[in-house]
Amino acid sequence: MKRVVIAGAGFAGLNAAKRLSRVRDVQVTLIDRENHHLFQPLLYQVAMAGLSPADIATPIRSLFTHAPNVRVLKEQALRVNLERACLITDHAEHAYDYLLLACGAQHAYFGHEEWEPYAPGLKNLSQATEIRRRVLEAFEAAEREPVPEQRRRYLTFVVVGGGPTGVELAGAIGEMSRYTLARDFRTIDPRQTRVMLIEAAPRILMGFDEDLAARAMRDLESLGVQVWTHARVTNISEEGVCVGTEDIAASTVLWAAGVRASPIAATLGVPLDKAGRVIVEPDFTIPGHREVFVAGDLAFAKDESGAPLPGIGAVAVQQGRFVGSAVLADLANRPRPTFHYHDKGQMATIGRARAIAEIYGHKLEGRFAWWMWLLVHIYFLSGFRNRLSVLVQWGWSYFTFGRGARLIVPKEWRAYDGGATTLAATQPPQSVQASPPLHSASVAGGEPVP
Amino acid sequence: MKRVVIAGAGFAGLNAAKRLSRVRDVQVTLIDRENHHLFQPLLYQVAMAGLSPADIATPIRSLFTHAPNVRVLKEQALRVNLERACLITDHAEHAYDYLLLACGAQHAYFGHEEWEPYAPGLKNLSQATEIRRRVLEAFEAAEREPVPEQRRRYLTFVVVGGGPTGVELAGAIGEMSRYTLARDFRTIDPRQTRVMLIEAAPRILMGFDEDLAARAMRDLESLGVQVWTHARVTNISEEGVCVGTEDIAASTVLWAAGVRASPIAATLGVPLDKAGRVIVEPDFTIPGHREVFVAGDLAFAKDESGAPLPGIGAVAVQQGRFVGSAVLADLANRPRPTFHYHDKGQMATIGRARAIAEIYGHKLEGRFAWWMWLLVHIYFLSGFRNRLSVLVQWGWSYFTFGRGARLIVPKEWRAYDGGATTLAATQPPQSVQASPPLHSASVAGGEPVP
Repeated sequence: MKRVVIAGAGFAGLNAAKRLSRVRDVQVTLIDRENHHLFQPLLYQVAMAGLSPADIATPIRSLFTHAPNVRVLKEQALRVNLERACLITDHAEHAYDYLLLACGAQHAYFGHEEWEPYAPGLKNLSQATEIRRRVLEAFEAAEREPVPEQRRRYLTFVVVGGGPTGVELAGAIGEMSRYTLARDFRTIDPRQTRVMLIEAAPRILMGFDEDLAARAMRDLESLGVQVWTHARVTNISEEGVCVGTEDIAASTVLWAAGVRASPIAATLGVPLDKAGRVIVEPDFTIPGHREVFVAGDLAFAKDESGAPLPGIGAVAVQQGRFVGSAVLADLANRPRPTFHYHDKGQMATIGRARAIAEIYGHKLEGRFAWWMWLLVHIYFLSGFRNRLSVLVQWGWSYFTFGRGARLIVPKEWRAYDGGATTLAATQPPQSVQASPPLHSASVAGGEPVP
Repeated sequence: MKRVVIAGAGFAGLNAAKRLSRVRDVQVTLIDRENHHLFQPLLYQVAMAGLSPADIATPIRSLFTHAPNVRVLKEQALRVNLERACLITDHAEHAYDYLLLACGAQHAYFGHEEWEPYAPGLKNLSQATEIRRRVLEAFEAAEREPVPEQRRRYLTFVVVGGGPTGVELAGAIGEMSRYTLARDFRTIDPRQTRVMLIEAAPRILMGFDEDLAARAMRDLESLGVQVWTHARVTNISEEGVCVGTEDIAASTVLWAAGVRASPIAATLGVPLDKAGRVIVEPDFTIPGHREVFVAGDLAFAKDESGAPLPGIGAVAVQQGRFVGSAVLADLANRPRPTFHYHDKGQMATIGRARAIAEIYGHKLEGRFAWWMWLLVHIYFLSGFRNRLSVLVQWGWSYFTFGRGARLIVPKEWRAYDGGATTLAATQPPQSVQASPPLHSASVAGGEPVP
């Protein structure tokens, strides 16, 4: 009985486990710190109140109900001990015959971690609901704010980073303010919302064809998004963002500029690239350890032509399946297969009915690309129920410009509010800050291309 | 132009605002500390992972898009100043010609507020997602727990209070463990879950007919729920619950035993009942102030026969409409109407296909009552989109025994986890407690009938 331990139930880990499920003589332990697999490509929709968290997340256990050889544990992987061949989590040690590390990436602030409280990134559901809370709260605060200057600050949204996530966030805020919220306020006009997309590189969407990126930029501008390229963020504080030497007063800043591999990569003691990813062999193992695989956003790998594989879901899916097959080959005493990356293309969506796509080398844009985007994403959502629920909600949003999940759920569980403080208060507070206490960083820095 | 200020967008406040929307010469300000109206009767479904928060909540603004005389503000009402005729919130003061206070109730621990961290109640969405997190985390913790005694503690769930909410929670946990989760774990058998419902009174569902309550009790027992009546909780701590002198080791305790009016009631300086509710006149005004109304769970009112009106949604809806009509009557110089409570009945559901109902005096039970319950609740859910989404999810759950929203979203927004502590850790922690730090209350008390 071979023990296969998989850390991380993202696209890579999940697909490896699926390939190995119901295989005789293999015992799979799938470990994740969350109880759900997350469909990351739609995470921005949760942040933008288009979908509910449960629509893009599936309980990991429920995917392996019929695979008795797969055990799912909600633990956080901390370190690998290569000599003793075990993975150490926050609850236990798991000895393995084969190990797959697929713990993904988190956002990086390029040495300015102090910016994080003011500019959350988007990697998990808590962050998505936090971003949703901040964006919707900003409109609420503007509605009750008597001082025009403060009101403008509440209605200014800055997205840092012009990759697909940044473009999708900025487009969604632009659309939400122009269509969804337009008639719901009495004091403010949400259409006067200022949305800015800040990118350090010469253009947005560097990973895409130049013509498509230009089209995406025009689409963003038609939603009222101001796109600044060649623009370096030098500071982020409670007051807003400093770009170069220019201060932008903004109550809501979102971070979509660059990621960093999970710190578990460093515990392997093998060479990492500058983003902290493990530089893997062509079969995704680490040097000298044919039993230890690294895949997904945690790995730095190249395709046959020597070009680095991009950090996208399709790559992780194919790597995960490959790792499963490699283990099966070993068990059957066959040589391991060779990995071929099957590049289907990439897409990004901008607002309600616009997208750009490169599919098998074909360039698509506008409404047709958006329908493609919709079909592809619904198809790949795991689990039938989610697909149906998402279809219902998108259909509804498309025809009504509504946003079903426009819900602010408070950051912390509201404990029993005894009422004593409430009754004791004699004066209403003067004004309230949605952001954390003042404590900002100064000057310096600038972020590389995401 | 008459200024009508409404505090609270629950069933009472919302219906009063609707009655007054698009009325010439009336300016309505609707104030709530949340941005959404909550369909409370289905809150337990969110706690039990059957529905998503957005399914039972509607943004208040979106309900008044086409009513330009209604302004919605997300502020928390703190106090009323009757002399100056203004409502004081955490952000501003609002002068009124008419005031409706409808801020509802919260749960009460009968002098044992120190129990609250160990036994959350169910009144808002944050509490519902917190309860969901605790219940699902308990199964996860049991799955990785090597010590049998600890595992039993994780798999013991105690619900305190045998009213409709307590019955629905206990039934849902019983059903979830027996059907939904049954095949998803490898170490534990979720069917060995112990669910207890503790009630101080001689029987559960005191508000219902005795035969129906007996049927509900049999239905609960068929789902494996142990019902203890005549049982007084004397202590709740991290370890579990003390009933009389008997200790029950349980990691998850839920509180459904009694409510208390919002503390704003006390700022009026008029007589309150022992649950802190305002004792109102037959037209729901307070003594000596025909311009100040109190309705919903914040009011203690009687019907024509002198019997107290129950604290349920139907009463609040009718009161809210009445208050709107009373204001309209004043404006038209007509005498105010007389309130007649139209009692349609009450229902409670137990698990997947069982319910009890009293409708216009008819007693219903079993599967037929459950279908009635389903129809009634879907009909009353505000907003078409939610109705459709809920239908899809319930349809799916009914035929698959699944639970769509089986999602643990961490309690707090996960900030940038720098990795330093992770890398520094040399030993995995021995075991982890899902509950807050040890700090429990001792002895005494016992709770009245909810």
